[in-house]
Amino acid sequence: MSSVREIIKRIKPLDPSAGPRAQEHLDDLTKPRGSLGRLEELARRLAEIYGSAELEQPLAYVAVFAADHGVTQSGVSPYPAEVTPQMVLNFLNGGAGINVLARQAWAEVRVVDVGVDYDFEELPGLISAKVARGTANLAQAPAMSLEQAEQAIAVGAGVAEKLIGEGAQLLIPGDMGIGNTTSCAALTALLCARPVAEVTGRGAGLDDEGLAQKVAIIEKAIALHRPDPGDPLRALAALGGLEIAAICGFVLEAAAQGKPVLLDGFISTCGALVAAKLCPEVTGYLLAGHCSVEIGHRAQLEALGLRPILDLDLRLGEGSGAALALNVLRAAVYIYNEMATFASAGVSGREE
Amino acid sequence: MSSVREIIKRIKPLDPSAGPRAQEHLDDLTKPRGSLGRLEELARRLAEIYGSAELEQPLAYVAVFAADHGVTQSGVSPYPAEVTPQMVLNFLNGGAGINVLARQAWAEVRVVDVGVDYDFEELPGLISAKVARGTANLAQAPAMSLEQAEQAIAVGAGVAEKLIGEGAQLLIPGDMGIGNTTSCAALTALLCARPVAEVTGRGAGLDDEGLAQKVAIIEKAIALHRPDPGDPLRALAALGGLEIAAICGFVLEAAAQGKPVLLDGFISTCGALVAAKLCPEVTGYLLAGHCSVEIGHRAQLEALGLRPILDLDLRLGEGSGAALALNVLRAAVYIYNEMATFASAGVSGREE
Repeated sequence: MSSVREIIKRIKPLDPSAGPRAQEHLDDLTKPRGSLGRLEELARRLAEIYGSAELEQPLAYVAVFAADHGVTQSGVSPYPAEVTPQMVLNFLNGGAGINVLARQAWAEVRVVDVGVDYDFEELPGLISAKVARGTANLAQAPAMSLEQAEQAIAVGAGVAEKLIGEGAQLLIPGDMGIGNTTSCAALTALLCARPVAEVTGRGAGLDDEGLAQKVAIIEKAIALHRPDPGDPLRALAALGGLEIAAICGFVLEAAAQGKPVLLDGFISTCGALVAAKLCPEVTGYLLAGHCSVEIGHRAQLEALGLRPILDLDLRLGEGSGAALALNVLRAAVYIYNEMATFASAGVSGREE
Repeated sequence: MSSVREIIKRIKPLDPSAGPRAQEHLDDLTKPRGSLGRLEELARRLAEIYGSAELEQPLAYVAVFAADHGVTQSGVSPYPAEVTPQMVLNFLNGGAGINVLARQAWAEVRVVDVGVDYDFEELPGLISAKVARGTANLAQAPAMSLEQAEQAIAVGAGVAEKLIGEGAQLLIPGDMGIGNTTSCAALTALLCARPVAEVTGRGAGLDDEGLAQKVAIIEKAIALHRPDPGDPLRALAALGGLEIAAICGFVLEAAAQGKPVLLDGFISTCGALVAAKLCPEVTGYLLAGHCSVEIGHRAQLEALGLRPILDLDLRLGEGSGAALALNVLRAAVYIYNEMATFASAGVSGREE
């Protein structure tokens, strides 16, 4: 397992020459220049990431990182913690939202137990890499030790390495963990320097009272641990979750191997935010699938300078919004490869 | 061919009972209630349109209505009018943007010559229903006679009828016609009661000077014809285009047969706007695929009370944005039919 530092050393900036070459091709296609807007932008960006003006439909994998959160003991979710392992089984049986949306977009789904408080048997599609049976309750103690956080990052990086080894050309980090919006709101407040109340949402459906309690718990936790925003690893350990750390590692390794990462919502982007704090070059490899209802997501996207592809009032997580956005990314590649050129179709160009 | 009045008589309001029944099913699926946002909204809307809480993947057809515009003589487009027939051939050869995006979303494409200034041979996929070889120049004379407008509406209605007869369960109106944003800006200004400059855009790519000229031409045309916004048929004849009239008829017949219409951009929505002015119940059957860069589109969507599914800076027309949005609509149906329920997956529900 590589250390964070070793992964970061391998992350290179994008190839700036591939974008204009891709745009030249896009301008030859039978449409007014630029008229396919963000589809053209996405095609250019993929060219820059792959370092090539030849694009193909990427083989895409969703890795759903699952873990439990000690903070659920403080009552931050309307759903019981047992839902985390139940949903893992639902993912493996193909019945969850992410399974449905991944099938539509021709993406493979893998589930990673990086910290679920339950002993699974060996199951097809499940990657067992439990670092701990959930985090400690961040309201009372650091969620993880620094070592645990680093181990979870290595798990995520290892999963990216394995999937890229299987042929993955595009990676989607998904999440499952009852209580994880509490961790992510805490990290987002800290790393984006925003008041807690501005980045804390209702998660799976808290009422006003529950939301106020969640904000108070996060504020107390930050006051208790006094994490340094300039030390993202320690902040991750104090406030984060095992799946968030794993997503951070997954994003770092994908970037190190020059693969695009299509982000989902609040949890997925939180892991990417930590990764970008560790290594700002990561952001070149990131695409924002959608903008979540969870209010802190917008602050994360702004901090990363990402414009979401979709805005459909989603707040499910699991990678679902990213899988949906994969259809748009695929559309960009189909357009790039399948449209006729002005010359080949005998269509007159613009009168200059 | 049915008259406009006969079609309108067959348009019924939606089934309000099917929406809540669909939502009950959505609430049983393994996700926090409402967490799939607009996917749930789209599933509910389809249930209301089809009058059934049982949904299936709709067989979808794009009809690209092509016609020429006399106003191109006044220099309102950077592309020559000959591009209209050239693009018709491109559609039939499968090389245009709409072909690529329709293939991805499993939609069939048909091309309708309702008024192209060119004699096509018989070609597979081409529906020949030419009403005239383009419109008159609306800067100097009414674009169409009232009879021509009614004929073109009947063509569109006939195409909807034919496609529904072939099994179409969802209809997408597309357009091709160099000069058609000029017609649509004129109609939009009139029917949405907006200043011309607020709803007139750059079309296929006018520069500032060209845009100012386009606005002036439209303002003069409105002053010349003095169309009554309360008489949408005569306004359509004076300022419209043959493909816009056909789209209006296509939308009316789809609504009359209880089928959803997934709208594309400025031209497609202009046809729907005229249809809704003729029969407000039509709006229940309309879904807005995307929000176009063409600035008048937003005014149309507001007038129709529609919230677009996508916002991707597109301005190609042809039905392309709607075909792209069809992936999202299909996602809503997949979710509806393929996700596990809390009971079937053994997942604990919310703690109330």
